Amino acid sequence: MYDGIVQDLIDEFGRLPGIGPKSAQRITFHILQSPSFDVSRLSILLGEVRDKVRFCEICGNVSEQDRCGICRDPRRNPTLICVVEDAKDVAAIERTREFRGLYHVLGGAISPIAGIGPDDLRITSLMQRLADGTVQEVILATNPNLEGEATATYLSRLLHTLEIQVTRLASGLPVGGDLEYADEVTLGRAFEGRRTL
Amino acid sequence: MYDGIVQDLIDEFGRLPGIGPKSAQRITFHILQSPSFDVSRLSILLGEVRDKVRFCEICGNVSEQDRCGICRDPRRNPTLICVVEDAKDVAAIERTREFRGLYHVLGGAISPIAGIGPDDLRITSLMQRLADGTVQEVILATNPNLEGEATATYLSRLLHTLEIQVTRLASGLPVGGDLEYADEVTLGRAFEGRRTL
Repeated sequence: MYDGIVQDLIDEFGRLPGIGPKSAQRITFHILQSPSFDVSRLSILLGEVRDKVRFCEICGNVSEQDRCGICRDPRRNPTLICVVEDAKDVAAIERTREFRGLYHVLGGAISPIAGIGPDDLRITSLMQRLADGTVQEVILATNPNLEGEATATYLSRLLHTLEIQVTRLASGLPVGGDLEYADEVTLGRAFEGRRTL
Repeated sequence: MYDGIVQDLIDEFGRLPGIGPKSAQRITFHILQSPSFDVSRLSILLGEVRDKVRFCEICGNVSEQDRCGICRDPRRNPTLICVVEDAKDVAAIERTREFRGLYHVLGGAISPIAGIGPDDLRITSLMQRLADGTVQEVILATNPNLEGEATATYLSRLLHTLEIQVTRLASGLPVGGDLEYADEVTLGRAFEGRRTL
């Protein structure tokens, strides 16, 4: 609908996840019409992210160095490893400030439908990290959905042979949620995991 | 939550309209994790849009040349001008293929709350276009909301002195909509504007 470049930029924004044609148009016009928006800064950051950001050689988290800030931090507890699907999950858990151990990013979850098997995940490097006996507990923090549960089950069987405690994050009612609106599976899990007060 | 550049890019995407922190994070990780996404293309387009795209010197629509494709097109009817608030509205009307005249983009609407008065809009250039007597009808296609209606009322009074027909787009029930769910103002307008069949 627009002349050349404007439509090209709309299309390019539209390729990004969660941005539909209307949003892409709105963003493009915002950039066109607000002189305060620093286009060069966004351009430079796009290039830098692609060039400089890599994945931590130990845990697989995003990092600008060979090893990420968490793996380099001597105050983190090296006897605890939290296994997550994605680097985004590391950030989510860090925000809780509840966990002071290390992470291991699998890079996805087992999904026969999407054609992702154990060999496509960073499982070998996890086993290597567990080999020297430092780690005492592995917390499986894959998502509480079909793929995440399958991955957790697979890993717990694999880790069963080692002398390491394997735990899974609790499922239950979300804090601040309403019992009436909880789905039956979540409510069932909340019953299963009930605690003595 | 992330190391330097990654967080910088998340923040930068978060500055764009309609992109919250979660979406910004999702987009940034998409760019990080999918090698097929062409970062340089987005960077180049951002710069080009800023450098090459300007506003048509006649109608105010976006254009890569001094005059936009619609103003340059000899097949468009020069006796009809459709006045819109924004260049995005030009694209929306063009998609209908109902209108073959020319446009005039005001660059906004009168809004005392936002501090936008008639002098902040491209009204003087509209009056100049109407001066030579070519234009026979001005269609006021500002939005059917408070600001758009105020702008239409202001313009219709201003144009009253000229020998030009001034019209306003019809308000009424949206096609495919349900009468039951129409708000009372829209339903009232639909009654006012009822046609003989």
